[in-house]
Amino acid sequence: QYERVLLGHGSGGKLSADLIQRVFLAELGNDVLLALEDSATLDLGSPDAASGQHRGGPRIAFTTDSFVVKPLFFPGGDIGKLAVHGTVNDLAVSGATPRFLSAAFILEEGFSIESLRRIVVSMREACVEAGVTLVTGDTKVVDRGKGDEVFITTTGIGVHEVNHHLSIHHARPGDRIIVSGTIGDHGMTIMSTREGIEFETALQSDTAALNGLTRAMLEACPSIRVMRDPTRGGVSSTLNELAAASEVGVALDESAIPLRPEVHSACEMLGLDPMYVANEGKLIVVVPEPDCQSLLQVMKQHPLGRDAAVIGHVVADHPGMVVMRSLIGGQRVVTMLAGEQLPRIC
Amino acid sequence: QYERVLLGHGSGGKLSADLIQRVFLAELGNDVLLALEDSATLDLGSPDAASGQHRGGPRIAFTTDSFVVKPLFFPGGDIGKLAVHGTVNDLAVSGATPRFLSAAFILEEGFSIESLRRIVVSMREACVEAGVTLVTGDTKVVDRGKGDEVFITTTGIGVHEVNHHLSIHHARPGDRIIVSGTIGDHGMTIMSTREGIEFETALQSDTAALNGLTRAMLEACPSIRVMRDPTRGGVSSTLNELAAASEVGVALDESAIPLRPEVHSACEMLGLDPMYVANEGKLIVVVPEPDCQSLLQVMKQHPLGRDAAVIGHVVADHPGMVVMRSLIGGQRVVTMLAGEQLPRIC
Ligand SMILES: Nc1ncnc2c1ncn2[C@@H]1O[C@H](COP(=O)(O)OP(=O)(O)OP(=O)(O)O)[C@@H](O)[C@H]1O
Ligand SMILES: Nc1ncnc2c1ncn2[C@@H]1O[C@H](COP(=O)(O)OP(=O)(O)OP(=O)(O)O)[C@@H](O)[C@H]1O
Ligand SMILES: [Mg+2]
Ligand SMILES: [Mg+2]
Ligand SMILES: [Mg+2]
Ligand SMILES: [Mg+2]
Ligand SMILES: [Mg+2]
Ligand SMILES: [Mg+2]
Repeated sequence: QYERVLLGHGSGGKLSADLIQRVFLAELGNDVLLALEDSATLDLGSPDAASGQHRGGPRIAFTTDSFVVKPLFFPGGDIGKLAVHGTVNDLAVSGATPRFLSAAFILEEGFSIESLRRIVVSMREACVEAGVTLVTGDTKVVDRGKGDEVFITTTGIGVHEVNHHLSIHHARPGDRIIVSGTIGDHGMTIMSTREGIEFETALQSDTAALNGLTRAMLEACPSIRVMRDPTRGGVSSTLNELAAASEVGVALDESAIPLRPEVHSACEMLGLDPMYVANEGKLIVVVPEPDCQSLLQVMKQHPLGRDAAVIGHVVADHPGMVVMRSLIGGQRVVTMLAGEQLPRIC
Repeated sequence: QYERVLLGHGSGGKLSADLIQRVFLAELGNDVLLALEDSATLDLGSPDAASGQHRGGPRIAFTTDSFVVKPLFFPGGDIGKLAVHGTVNDLAVSGATPRFLSAAFILEEGFSIESLRRIVVSMREACVEAGVTLVTGDTKVVDRGKGDEVFITTTGIGVHEVNHHLSIHHARPGDRIIVSGTIGDHGMTIMSTREGIEFETALQSDTAALNGLTRAMLEACPSIRVMRDPTRGGVSSTLNELAAASEVGVALDESAIPLRPEVHSACEMLGLDPMYVANEGKLIVVVPEPDCQSLLQVMKQHPLGRDAAVIGHVVADHPGMVVMRSLIGGQRVVTMLAGEQLPRIC
């Protein structure tokens, strides 16, 4: 039992879930928060004054993330891009159309204005590309040594134009599990940049806005049950959350999981399992088996889904547990990330 | 010309405005952001697929603030209360009914879980009192020495149930200016706590949710033109923003400005002008002269408006400038806060 905050409380794995449960949900719990989806779904309708009946307003999606990544700039992106993509993606995987963002900056005294401007330009480009508008912000400064250059918190509003009702609770035995592309790219890029390791082929973060892909997927395949972006904690943590929330088992096929050779090498060199490494432009989708192949084709036609692959399926056995058939034939249980592998990955 | 972030960039005064203008608005500018209101007003209506016509959705208010106050706990409140009240108030003074909050936490490794829990409990109480629901959150951890215990970013959504169209651009010559109570209470409480100064009468932060007060005010007096919470930078910075945005002059009467004797003493002792000191549970309202007295009575009937007072009026002369008739008779120009008086006040 910990009495102080540990780095692992920010891992996106087991310790994160524990702190959120024990402190935040225990005190603030309400139905929307307790669902632990990527975005809260809000109904802005209000009781009609005249009739007393509930006028249906639009259902909106609402989500927030702070970004504390180090280094601020890395191959394939920077903290500004992450801050826009991360929040856009939590809206997108909830089935909403991302529309508006806020951005709050905590600057450390002495931080370079030139770097700040680069980050802001990068955010602008990411907003334009994702079709969202940054409409409100905040700027605070902390004294030297009390922050780390810049932290950015973005919060997003999306609109549920179609009522998809995606949920981490909706996976059913028989469903297929697809990942939209190679895993671990973002985390290993940050890691190797930080460690100053160079590989033959340059690693690059996969940070990207997924709302174009999710829109195409949902239009083609309204039967999708779950979408989720496997960020901190990696694919394994997301699948464990899914197994627990839906009270199902997950069966994975290791040979089917897309992995870049350079990410594979980097993981081997640093002794990391790519299943636990963060992604910033990937999603996991759970779909009824009959629609699996058509959805896969739609995904493959999108630039961000080119390497999409069916990596496993949902089973009634071992509920709450993720089991992987390994390359060499055996089976192993894939648990949630337990400690902290890669602090400040996003 | 600065090349690095200065503490003054977080003051809420001139340097803050300058950084926001030069970096954020220059790169991200759009109509909603450029209005620089306390909340962005968003229209969630969307073109109707069938008719191509615009279905009017509800107008919503959207705002964000990061909180980095030191110390975390102080007489009258703590960082958690501030984080809820601050965002609720930016929604309320925009004329909206605050409904939903997100909260993103940046924790420093080693921070006490017990203190974190106290803060979260405090947020829950503040949410209940203000009638808002915290529906989504985020938790990141930074390594020891790269943060400062805890930073909280709250973002809020409110609904414009009535179309008030309040705006910092709407003050007109002849309008009256009312402040809802004594000024400088929050800032001087933080300052004296930090400096370990004790006064005969204990100072206490005025942090409070203003949405009850604003609702009563708007119901009684729909002609209100501007509301604003004078937080960082104090009353003088808010009035200067108002004078500039509405292209009018502001004439103040120093003798009318409500000030607690203990705040007055503390300011004298520390050489501070209460006009520049932060408030967290006060608002400034601009109202057409004919409605001024009735509005004042409504405010005085509310616990948070008991000490409300007319402190000046809007003039056509000296547009963009705030001029104060002082206690001893002379006149002086009250400019925006220039440097940084009280870092990390909220
Ligand atoms: N401090 C908190 N208070 C309340 N709820 C929280 C808090 N931190 C996280 N949550 C909730 O826990 C769930 C998981 O949060 P988490 O941040 O891991 O998801 P994510 O944003 O999808 O991942 P990432 O932050 O890696 O992008 C979400 O539903 C979120 O609203
Ligand atoms: N980093 C930023 N990017 C975009 N807009 C910003 C940024 N910082 C502030 N703004 C905008 O500038 C205006 C003033 O912001 P400011 O934070 O001073 O207001 P406030 O929230 O009412 O005050 P406080 O933060 O003291 O409570 C707001 O309209 C806000 O949206
Ligand atoms: Mg997510
Ligand atoms: Mg996220
Ligand atoms: Mg602000
Ligand atoms: Mg404000
Ligand atoms: Mg504010
Ligand atoms: Mg998050």
